Amino acid sequence: MPSYKAPVDETMFLLTDVLGYERYGNLPAFAEAAPDLIEAILTEGGKLCEEVLQPLNLPGDAAGCTRHDDGRVTTPDGFRDAYEAIAEGGWIGLAADPEYGGQGLPHTLTVIMNEYMCSANLAFAMYPGLSQGAYAALLLHGSDAQKRTYLPKIVSGAWSGTMNLTEPQCGTDLGLIRTKAVPRDDGSYAITGSKIFISAGEHDLTENIVHLVLARIDGAPAGTDGLSLFVVPKFLPDDDGNAGARNGVSCGAIEEKMGIHANSTCTMNYDGATGWLVGTENKGLSAMFTMMNHARLGVGVQGLAISEAAYQNAADYARERLQGRSISGTKAPDKPADPIIVHPDIRRMLMTIRAFNEAARALVIWTSLKGDVSVLAEDEDERERAEDHLALLTPVIKGVLTDTGFANAVLAQQVFGGHGYIAESGMDQFVRDARIAMIYEGANGIQALDLVGRKLPANGGRALRAFFREIDVFLKENGDNETLSPYLSGLKAGRDDLEKATMWLMQNAMADRDNAGAAATDFMHLFGLVALGLMWAKIAKAAAAKSGSGDGRDEVYAAKLVTGRFFMERMMPETAAHLARISAGASSMMALPAEAF
Amino acid sequence: MPSYKAPVDETMFLLTDVLGYERYGNLPAFAEAAPDLIEAILTEGGKLCEEVLQPLNLPGDAAGCTRHDDGRVTTPDGFRDAYEAIAEGGWIGLAADPEYGGQGLPHTLTVIMNEYMCSANLAFAMYPGLSQGAYAALLLHGSDAQKRTYLPKIVSGAWSGTMNLTEPQCGTDLGLIRTKAVPRDDGSYAITGSKIFISAGEHDLTENIVHLVLARIDGAPAGTDGLSLFVVPKFLPDDDGNAGARNGVSCGAIEEKMGIHANSTCTMNYDGATGWLVGTENKGLSAMFTMMNHARLGVGVQGLAISEAAYQNAADYARERLQGRSISGTKAPDKPADPIIVHPDIRRMLMTIRAFNEAARALVIWTSLKGDVSVLAEDEDERERAEDHLALLTPVIKGVLTDTGFANAVLAQQVFGGHGYIAESGMDQFVRDARIAMIYEGANGIQALDLVGRKLPANGGRALRAFFREIDVFLKENGDNETLSPYLSGLKAGRDDLEKATMWLMQNAMADRDNAGAAATDFMHLFGLVALGLMWAKIAKAAAAKSGSGDGRDEVYAAKLVTGRFFMERMMPETAAHLARISAGASSMMALPAEAF
Repeated sequence: MPSYKAPVDETMFLLTDVLGYERYGNLPAFAEAAPDLIEAILTEGGKLCEEVLQPLNLPGDAAGCTRHDDGRVTTPDGFRDAYEAIAEGGWIGLAADPEYGGQGLPHTLTVIMNEYMCSANLAFAMYPGLSQGAYAALLLHGSDAQKRTYLPKIVSGAWSGTMNLTEPQCGTDLGLIRTKAVPRDDGSYAITGSKIFISAGEHDLTENIVHLVLARIDGAPAGTDGLSLFVVPKFLPDDDGNAGARNGVSCGAIEEKMGIHANSTCTMNYDGATGWLVGTENKGLSAMFTMMNHARLGVGVQGLAISEAAYQNAADYARERLQGRSISGTKAPDKPADPIIVHPDIRRMLMTIRAFNEAARALVIWTSLKGDVSVLAEDEDERERAEDHLALLTPVIKGVLTDTGFANAVLAQQVFGGHGYIAESGMDQFVRDARIAMIYEGANGIQALDLVGRKLPANGGRALRAFFREIDVFLKENGDNETLSPYLSGLKAGRDDLEKATMWLMQNAMADRDNAGAAATDFMHLFGLVALGLMWAKIAKAAAAKSGSGDGRDEVYAAKLVTGRFFMERMMPETAAHLARISAGASSMMALPAEAF
Repeated sequence: MPSYKAPVDETMFLLTDVLGYERYGNLPAFAEAAPDLIEAILTEGGKLCEEVLQPLNLPGDAAGCTRHDDGRVTTPDGFRDAYEAIAEGGWIGLAADPEYGGQGLPHTLTVIMNEYMCSANLAFAMYPGLSQGAYAALLLHGSDAQKRTYLPKIVSGAWSGTMNLTEPQCGTDLGLIRTKAVPRDDGSYAITGSKIFISAGEHDLTENIVHLVLARIDGAPAGTDGLSLFVVPKFLPDDDGNAGARNGVSCGAIEEKMGIHANSTCTMNYDGATGWLVGTENKGLSAMFTMMNHARLGVGVQGLAISEAAYQNAADYARERLQGRSISGTKAPDKPADPIIVHPDIRRMLMTIRAFNEAARALVIWTSLKGDVSVLAEDEDERERAEDHLALLTPVIKGVLTDTGFANAVLAQQVFGGHGYIAESGMDQFVRDARIAMIYEGANGIQALDLVGRKLPANGGRALRAFFREIDVFLKENGDNETLSPYLSGLKAGRDDLEKATMWLMQNAMADRDNAGAAATDFMHLFGLVALGLMWAKIAKAAAAKSGSGDGRDEVYAAKLVTGRFFMERMMPETAAHLARISAGASSMMALPAEAF
């Protein structure tokens, strides 16, 4: 049976020692959230994840969701109680505006809690996660009346949210959307069409479900410029704001899928359903992108979350499973065999995962803090710089953390040998669940194109220049710190490869745009390694500084210095292979005619 | 719905144009097997895979095997008929000795057919595959009486075979086996113990099941030196050699696992079951290794097989799915969107898979031919050289082809976007099925250790030196062929990294054996890339030579030259990252105490 322990100590070390949490104290939401309060909140939230959500994960996978003949969908046993615990504890609205019943804490705290929830039970965590996305979209784009109607219900957890984009003929290419919205006299619209792959589209956890739906108003232009966003509740709010009459939207089927079985993935049929325009006509895509960007960072966190949970179980197994003897001499002579953690190849897998997890968590928290700054800072330049960082790093976090999170789940499963292939180990579920994160909210190839095609050139490359400056300042400021030299030299090597790759793109992508497309995924992963390398340099600096401070955690700091070295020695060298592939250009990739495949 | 087409043309090109099939004509089994006969056989076998096995793959996965209360196990609908077709067609004994009812064809042909069968239906193909392993073990180690009793039944498909090694407390470390064998007066043994993860342990496809079981004779030494191999049939052969009385072996449970659902993975309980010693007392492990080595090559083929099937489906999808417009300008103006094969990142995935598949198939066939030579050649030196090649390449093929085959199934699934996560696409099944091949028959970390710890140093490094010589001769002989220069330079770069890695191991693994363990997996993959690179150089040479020959296949040859270039530009550069990791040594990997994980 798999287990999980929320890494609260890790989080606090990153927040306070590595990322200088106290520097954010001047921001409104942070003023009230001193480190000891944060730690208390995370400890309580972590316990909920460990004790309530995690035990439901494996049985939830086996049971899945059930669609009944009348179109109702029921979630696995225990999910309703667990959802109530999350809602009552105020976890859904941790960072929501107190005006709507939220707790007004930094958004960063929600991101951290989402890591813990997704580690414990990804399929479950998606329900409140989608509500948070719907909250964000309505908060920014909804009318005052819409906010008053929907936000308190979403924040309290009484109602949940969904995103309705995909249709059978369109996934990435939303310009192909066919769902129609016909205006009615009362200002509402009649929404008609079919949406697929709608996560949490129908379930039994909440009184009502608030669908945010992309559709085309009758007569609107073709393509993405004709899309509008609508709010379409499952039950129409009555005069008291409670769930009233049933709306014309229903679940036609739930998908049989590879994983996240306990989250209902629905085909939603809109049959003249009543919807209300959110924001401006024909500007639905940009409104939806608020939700998407929010969701993309959250999906990146899912990659980290599964990687962490898989790691913990693999490490436990490796310490306990007795098999073979160490090639450097017997380590446990009193036992029939040594624990497999003595074998280098087992450690290779474990170290690879942990070297990713610790830095990825730092990257996520750092970026989330920038997200808070981008909204909360008084100074406009500061907000702009933070927004640049957030925009640049979002596709990297989404793409790299989910690709690597999946690869790490596979590695952790491998530690278990044959036992990892058996459902009861839970390792198989981690792999199957992690797989979706590489696909949804924009497949990772789309993230890479977003990075290379949109985020790099934006504002004349301002965000990327700032990212390089961040690295270069760190390298310069710490250049004479002997202890840090292996971390700095590794970071420098990666940084230089990233610079060369950027130069190559500047010189070659204009002449042949396929060169950008052909380079995109490698560029994203190269960028990710450098960003993780920067995190390791910062972690190493903090660990070295805290070591010997008498806080009783010297072994933890020593482990960080070792793990960071492993990253620089064994993971950072991959940047050179990425650079070689990028510099190879598009020609061999694009040469074959379609029929030759 | 997934589909499959057996790549007979590809196989024939490799056999005849790349690997010089006609050079083997002096070997007994080959004399009767001219290329046109081989092609006819493969065409017929391919059709069976396409029309009979493949349609059962997806439904077989959904249905799985069922264990009934009486211990019987039934396979999915259609499996019995399909098995009968395979058996009646003589496919199980294609390469078996005609004395036992086999067709006496080269073993290479069986390997090729196994690729097609595993592409079409891996879970199904395991049943005859295990029989072939049992045949090999009994042929080499069984007594004449045992051969007469079992081999004709196995060859005809009336009886099937299994391998029984794993127990709950031992997987890799077979020295921990507890299953007991107590000698009886009649020369038989009473076998008692419990085996787990026994593929095809119980099913309804055959009249009888022949279990090959590793057990410890009462009083035998501890560890692997006390293991003996036994044949334990489900039904004891009667005086006429038919399945008679029920033996004391039964299936206690079947495993709930990630994939290969249609193959029954059983817990087998031996309760004083009657067994007979195969080969010599306490030499069971080496007898079992005959079966294992045979199986390891076969498992490597499974990696290729899934990669091929996944590729074919992804390529079809990419040609048909309309989404977005090419970044270099609209390609299908008459359609609502371009087919996604216009997008470089989609091609990156497809090209990566095909660049692996074609070379991996060449490597498998080349090595299988060596396998035939190692048994059939008259000249002892020739047999020894072939045996060296087979021994050296077996762990590489097992480890690299299954790791990469799985990664490729994941890539192919990614081409499908969200649709690939849905069961009916079949892509999810490819990923889940491919995953097991990295684990069974020795997890890939064990393959890497076998390569580095056993195969490299064997006979003073003779096999590796011969492998380098093979490359160097090819480089030299073709050095002035302008057309080949991109392939030769890529191969040379990889070869040089492999040489450096070997030197590093020679200098550092003696002083600290953990350095070998820490390098093993990277070394195996580095070796694999160089071996695949050699195959690409040979394929390119053959394609260039055949191009313009008027055989109407110039487009095929042109595609090979492009795909080989893609391999050299985008896959071979990974050797440098492997070398960097190998040269980093074990220190950061081994530094942490177990409790720090």
